[in-house]
Amino acid sequence: MINLEEKVCRWIEDNKDNAVRLLKKLIAEKSTIGEEFNAQAVILEKLRQFQMEVDVYEPSIIQLKQHPYFVSGRENFAESPNIVARKHGSGGGKSIILNGHIDVVPEGSIGKWSTHPYLAVEKNGKVYGRGASDMKGGTTALLLAIEALEACGITLKGDLIFQSVTDEENGGAGTLSTVLRGYKADGALIPEPTNLKLFIKQQGSMWFRIIVKGLSAHGGTRYEGVSAIEKSILVLNALKELEKKRNVRIKDPLYHNTPIPVPINIGTINGGSWPSSVADLVQVEGRCGVAPDEDMNHVKLEIENGLKSLEKQDEWFKFHPVELEWYGAHWLPNALDENHDLVRSLEASFEKITNHTAKKEASPWGTDGGMLFHAGSIPTIVFGPGETKVAHHTDEYIEIEAMLTSAKIISLFLLDWCEIEND
Amino acid sequence: MINLEEKVCRWIEDNKDNAVRLLKKLIAEKSTIGEEFNAQAVILEKLRQFQMEVDVYEPSIIQLKQHPYFVSGRENFAESPNIVARKHGSGGGKSIILNGHIDVVPEGSIGKWSTHPYLAVEKNGKVYGRGASDMKGGTTALLLAIEALEACGITLKGDLIFQSVTDEENGGAGTLSTVLRGYKADGALIPEPTNLKLFIKQQGSMWFRIIVKGLSAHGGTRYEGVSAIEKSILVLNALKELEKKRNVRIKDPLYHNTPIPVPINIGTINGGSWPSSVADLVQVEGRCGVAPDEDMNHVKLEIENGLKSLEKQDEWFKFHPVELEWYGAHWLPNALDENHDLVRSLEASFEKITNHTAKKEASPWGTDGGMLFHAGSIPTIVFGPGETKVAHHTDEYIEIEAMLTSAKIISLFLLDWCEIEND
Repeated sequence: MINLEEKVCRWIEDNKDNAVRLLKKLIAEKSTIGEEFNAQAVILEKLRQFQMEVDVYEPSIIQLKQHPYFVSGRENFAESPNIVARKHGSGGGKSIILNGHIDVVPEGSIGKWSTHPYLAVEKNGKVYGRGASDMKGGTTALLLAIEALEACGITLKGDLIFQSVTDEENGGAGTLSTVLRGYKADGALIPEPTNLKLFIKQQGSMWFRIIVKGLSAHGGTRYEGVSAIEKSILVLNALKELEKKRNVRIKDPLYHNTPIPVPINIGTINGGSWPSSVADLVQVEGRCGVAPDEDMNHVKLEIENGLKSLEKQDEWFKFHPVELEWYGAHWLPNALDENHDLVRSLEASFEKITNHTAKKEASPWGTDGGMLFHAGSIPTIVFGPGETKVAHHTDEYIEIEAMLTSAKIISLFLLDWCEIEND
Repeated sequence: MINLEEKVCRWIEDNKDNAVRLLKKLIAEKSTIGEEFNAQAVILEKLRQFQMEVDVYEPSIIQLKQHPYFVSGRENFAESPNIVARKHGSGGGKSIILNGHIDVVPEGSIGKWSTHPYLAVEKNGKVYGRGASDMKGGTTALLLAIEALEACGITLKGDLIFQSVTDEENGGAGTLSTVLRGYKADGALIPEPTNLKLFIKQQGSMWFRIIVKGLSAHGGTRYEGVSAIEKSILVLNALKELEKKRNVRIKDPLYHNTPIPVPINIGTINGGSWPSSVADLVQVEGRCGVAPDEDMNHVKLEIENGLKSLEKQDEWFKFHPVELEWYGAHWLPNALDENHDLVRSLEASFEKITNHTAKKEASPWGTDGGMLFHAGSIPTIVFGPGETKVAHHTDEYIEIEAMLTSAKIISLFLLDWCEIEND
């Protein structure tokens, strides 16, 4: 490695404690959808230390709603600001967007966590807490990389745009609003938890809601009603069959290590209103994965037809068909050519830091990469520390070393992609 | 029939419209648990027209909680008064308690009702609405019978005690409090919807709550988690097996016409917190029927053991057993001897009015009869208009004719049981 690269990496090593401190502050500020304000304040506090133009704004729901890719469960972004910080390059280099989402999914049952999800406990080289991997660890790595370049007195030729966005877990309205506000670049990197693999394709996904109908009755004569809970079991089985059918079709070698490339996840079930009444309504909500090459409307039709065929199995569904709604969030799938400059540059940086060849995979989840590409025509790669298996999970954590390693790789990638200004 | 009986029946016929009006007023006042106040006000308004001592009081939760049979989901009875009205007899006759509960179960999905559940629409000789059968129709029949005797100038020898109680659907705390307040009698009649059959035995029941555990994960890699929703299906199947096993044992001919004498009803299911997370917790609530001759603690043990054996089917349950809780309500079972005077007197009145022999059955649900008998040693029979199949159901209704018929039968029963004072 050349001297400058070594200097940057050493600075990152030396500032490990500061990075961990920042990560813990970010985790401590619970930032589920609608509650992102305090976590964004931590980001802002950090950015104020850099020489960057900072743009803090609440996305306009009116503007967003006019866009065909807009999805969100929310009615406004009051107190849910986006933050974008730009460092103008000296000119001549390629520009980059570094994008991380600040929102986290709910913590689930707090009692099932070994440590409180918002206490950000450090243990055996890991920091535990909701959002550690998805994706406050990745965001910390970005801020560390930016700070390292600045601390080492490096000027880049290309513009560097850092984004801390809201609403990713709702489908990417935060990132869509950055595009509508005019933020574009020659490429983008999103440090979602890829376990330091290069995710050059990302699975899209859509949320669905299914209403299953029954006929209520007194629980003591339950045989006089029809239990929507019992009928739901048939619906869940049908969705499992659909998942099987959809996944045997996928031959892309990038999904070689993925047990179920495009899962159908049942996330919630809620039905019935009284222990001793027969439930007349059950609501099931879930997420359907979309392969990078799939058309979302075709997928919708396939699920719809699969549920319709329930009537062959049980006459009840003929006269009381389930209601299927695609609601809330969707994430557009995304695919980058294996030979794109973004891939090559990141691969080279990866090799310099780790002495290994980077692994390339397709991600098992959607990211804001689909939004950046489809809405903003910005080629996007997903690469970051942390592991999918702990994201959206109890005892979510991030390995501190992986966070530092990714910060080093991203720093070197920035030096290569945006190019260094030689005074 | 003797002249006086004819007179009473004719008065009831002539006052059909008034009775229907009263019933509609009662239905219009939604009286789910905690919201009984306005419906009780309608009862009170009616009772004020009678020559009865009226006692309106809020049950004391402190006193109730000391009683071993107390169950309730509520913390107090503020604005949920009980009403007891007593007409002292001239002496020498047997006393009677006429008991009806004012609380109704929630209406479920209003959209599934043909008419609004609290509009009390009259159509084809029926009045539709939540509580029509369970049991505002029965209570109306009681009030009609009492008014008929009074209008016909009849004095009874035995005391007549009318009770409009709260909290039956929670397990009978309202009725328990009438016993604790000192209201006793030689017999009791509860006009729950028996479709004019004599229910001389009543099934008891208990509520349970089961917590099923999973392991959360991101929905995109759902194979890294364990879905509590999937595991719930196994739990529901196990409960169905237990129900089968428990019911093949029941040989009592009174249950001859009952498809499932002691059902296990799954009333609610709720689990998961996010469409694209694997659910780590599901809560299932339901009601377990108890046969008249069963010991409640034995039943609890049987269910507990049945759920424990899930671990043989799936190792997950060995390390993550379900949690079973008996919560909220239970209803004590009740049984009356076939030759008890209550049965004979009611049978005789039934025959006079209908010219048919009364049918005797065991009820497929618990009533406050178990509480009156076990807590107050008051022999209790359950007999009323309306049908179980519409109770706790959408489009619940009551047939007006059945309501009038039951009022006539109950009037004649009162004349016989309490005896008429001959001036």
